[in-house]
Amino acid sequence: MSARIDLNADLGEGFGAWRMGDDAGLLDIVTSANVACGFHAGDPDIMVETAAAARARGVAIGAHPGFLDLRGFGRMRIQESPRRIERDIAYQIGALQACAALAGARVTHVKAHGALANLSNEDEAVAEALARAVAGVDRSLVLMVMPGLPAERAGERAGLRLIREVYADRVYAADGTLMPRAMPGSVIHDADEAARRVVRMVEEGAVFTGDGQKISVAIDTVCVHGDNPAALTMARAVRTKLEAAGLSIRPFAEP
Amino acid sequence: MSARIDLNADLGEGFGAWRMGDDAGLLDIVTSANVACGFHAGDPDIMVETAAAARARGVAIGAHPGFLDLRGFGRMRIQESPRRIERDIAYQIGALQACAALAGARVTHVKAHGALANLSNEDEAVAEALARAVAGVDRSLVLMVMPGLPAERAGERAGLRLIREVYADRVYAADGTLMPRAMPGSVIHDADEAARRVVRMVEEGAVFTGDGQKISVAIDTVCVHGDNPAALTMARAVRTKLEAAGLSIRPFAEP
Amino acid sequence: MSARIDLNADLGEGFGAWRMGDDAGLLDIVTSANVACGFHAGDPDIMVETAAAARARGVAIGAHPGFLDLRGFGRMRIQESPRRIERDIAYQIGALQACAALAGARVTHVKAHGALANLSNEDEAVAEALARAVAGVDRSLVLMVMPGLPAERAGERAGLRLIREVYADRVYAADGTLMPRAMPGSVIHDADEAARRVVRMVEEGAVFTGDGQKISVAIDTVCVHGDNPAALTMARAVRTKLEAAGLSIRPFAEP
Amino acid sequence: MSARIDLNADLGEGFGAWRMGDDAGLLDIVTSANVACGFHAGDPDIMVETAAAARARGVAIGAHPGFLDLRGFGRMRIQESPRRIERDIAYQIGALQACAALAGARVTHVKAHGALANLSNEDEAVAEALARAVAGVDRSLVLMVMPGLPAERAGERAGLRLIREVYADRVYAADGTLMPRAMPGSVIHDADEAARRVVRMVEEGAVFTGDGQKISVAIDTVCVHGDNPAALTMARAVRTKLEAAGLSIRPFAEP
Repeated sequence: MSARIDLNADLGEGFGAWRMGDDAGLLDIVTSANVACGFHAGDPDIMVETAAAARARGVAIGAHPGFLDLRGFGRMRIQESPRRIERDIAYQIGALQACAALAGARVTHVKAHGALANLSNEDEAVAEALARAVAGVDRSLVLMVMPGLPAERAGERAGLRLIREVYADRVYAADGTLMPRAMPGSVIHDADEAARRVVRMVEEGAVFTGDGQKISVAIDTVCVHGDNPAALTMARAVRTKLEAAGLSIRPFAEP
Repeated sequence: MSARIDLNADLGEGFGAWRMGDDAGLLDIVTSANVACGFHAGDPDIMVETAAAARARGVAIGAHPGFLDLRGFGRMRIQESPRRIERDIAYQIGALQACAALAGARVTHVKAHGALANLSNEDEAVAEALARAVAGVDRSLVLMVMPGLPAERAGERAGLRLIREVYADRVYAADGTLMPRAMPGSVIHDADEAARRVVRMVEEGAVFTGDGQKISVAIDTVCVHGDNPAALTMARAVRTKLEAAGLSIRPFAEP
Repeated sequence: MSARIDLNADLGEGFGAWRMGDDAGLLDIVTSANVACGFHAGDPDIMVETAAAARARGVAIGAHPGFLDLRGFGRMRIQESPRRIERDIAYQIGALQACAALAGARVTHVKAHGALANLSNEDEAVAEALARAVAGVDRSLVLMVMPGLPAERAGERAGLRLIREVYADRVYAADGTLMPRAMPGSVIHDADEAARRVVRMVEEGAVFTGDGQKISVAIDTVCVHGDNPAALTMARAVRTKLEAAGLSIRPFAEP
Repeated sequence: MSARIDLNADLGEGFGAWRMGDDAGLLDIVTSANVACGFHAGDPDIMVETAAAARARGVAIGAHPGFLDLRGFGRMRIQESPRRIERDIAYQIGALQACAALAGARVTHVKAHGALANLSNEDEAVAEALARAVAGVDRSLVLMVMPGLPAERAGERAGLRLIREVYADRVYAADGTLMPRAMPGSVIHDADEAARRVVRMVEEGAVFTGDGQKISVAIDTVCVHGDNPAALTMARAVRTKLEAAGLSIRPFAEP
């Protein structure tokens, strides 16, 4: 059992006059914030302000790069070459580093967003592009990945420090990926149930499939959401249950 | 008389499938390249490739931030707040730093583009925003400015290292700004005449107005263009004449 | 006193995954909807769905063109030429006409948004560009304008049918423009007070300045908002009071 | 043998300050112009000016909608839903209709661009979306399609008038699609050879595969290119050879 665990969430997902999610609420719960970098959400104002708010709470700041797709919120798969993906990710990391610098903060980690994250968990070439981008920009950046999938292996090969994450509200498939949302039973909607599952995942060092199988994995962080009041309630429940189980909730990288 | 002079030009001004200017031709002439950062032109592919090409020629790489205005090429004045301008500039600098890192290169300087540059030479608040952005991202970055105008003073107040530039093909107004392009006689079209003027400017440490007045200024770099064959011819003539006058053509910042 | 009055509001102001305002709530109140056309807000999905929802309620559909400025929500002044403004407006009108057609609906009117609206009330050349765009695309479109200002006069000169609008929650300056929001007392926050003022404006055919002066104008429609619960409450109060005063609340153009 | 044939090309593929292809050169050769509508290329200025230039030459104007992907020039496949594709296409058609109206012209046809065109020739749902968009906006618009593929069948089912096109410089696969550009021998580079092939295709009413098989198809128009001097030379050769063969080169739809 790990004595310490990180809680992460995606923040700064507005654009211009639009906002998404309860960033202030999440910053009271999580220890790492994945900040959108302008390609699928986020703009320089939001990035600086999110970095400043995270810094004020001692929350670690990560870059959350996605596809160049504001309209689709980075959820659409776009047939980009691995080389372009590598460069797009680097661009976004650098942009957030500079915005964080304006807020007196620094970027500690990188986590891919949406369709880019999905591809990095399926396609070795995209996983390599992600790892190359992080290593090429700054080798001290930590790569946040789902354990057991291509992005983790690419990060290991690149010699990057890794943070392995599990999802609080999702059921896993036998291959260690998430069961598709469209499948019945793939998403946990009850906050208490999700919180209990998270504690079990962290204590047993494993994720669990829909039919009860246990897949042993390293777990460093738990991803929670804040895009609606129920999500925030679940995130709070997860934190409370993890603390009650004696775990120390701390950012994996020093912010 | 300064024994050394830098020659700078704007490069990487394509976007996606579109290209603008003869970057390869300019890289044989200039010693500093101002690279568009994605807001008015440029994209991660172009930025990485321009940085790689500049590095291969020993040409110093600068960030060339502009307004968020791809359609208008950064030439439209947009009524943004100084705070947003500061953050937009920081974002663009960081993005280029990361793209340069992928190319094994580094960013040495920053020069504002188009309407943003014009505003930074007219409006103290915009000039301050520019200086704050550069200082906030990386104090070792050099700010390229027109001498005698608000951006230079803001850079001095921020304690930044400055490079003062003059324009090879432009006639100056009495206040040290450029005569508007729309005014007759404001733009030098003859390559030899421009080259002679540049040598005189650099040797005398002064710019010259339309009616022959001399305004003494510090001159560290000369801006040339490459957006058409005539511009490239002028750029070559300027370089040849400066060398013939015994000046050492070198980047001001080590690339 | 006019026996009939239109109520209008701006709808469809989301983009991609982002939403703004309570469109469903407003559609129960207003008789004309000004639909964002993709330049400052709105996308084809939102445009088709907003047109379908308006049609289902018998609400007239108008194009609400703005500057090409998603990040700034069309509120930033951009130094575009009148010719470009004319073409941008035409593009947006046509785009909405096609989206409305997919929803089995049609566009009846045009109202400029944000900074573009402000400019059309200040700058004769912009006002002319707006009128030319509407007339050039479809002479049967009605132009919604503030009475007494350049856009109204340009519409008259272009031979367009006009709808004159007043703002429910704003106090007017002596020249018939709105008092700037930044000025104390310029915005009415109390729903009942706003509703009473609207009835008085419509009954007396006039707007009122901060110091109580009365400026006689033609009034065909009243603009209300729905971007927050208080705004929606005010919109409902305006409608209720207008009905109580015996006015018929109907779209000016048949939807 | 058809006594008349249309020649079409993609025009207006610039954006903002960038240009692509020799539109003026092409307008002397073709009888139908497919005009980019702002999603992958084109902007309102370019659209109005291209429509005006086409009208002045008696060249028919078509909408050339693509994916929302300026950076990728509409060549990237994006995983959009058929419903969104339908709406995106409608939006673009309407936008061009309005821009054409400003130029005193009208849109006669629609041809999908790039990755959207490829998908409409592979995926029945995308083909249906294309046909629904055209029919939904204006049933009098003609749909330009490759014969024998899903888009043609969807257009027929929607009751649209169709124009079948062949490519001057491409070799076909056995299923009637184009051989991928990456395959050796798939692209004809010699202008005379391409021109001879076109005459044979038109005279025999068939396309030819790499191994010499003949696939009988209806042919109403031939697609040529103008993105480089060699392409323009080929386009001229095609026209000359078609005229020499006694064919009447005319737009299929009256402009």
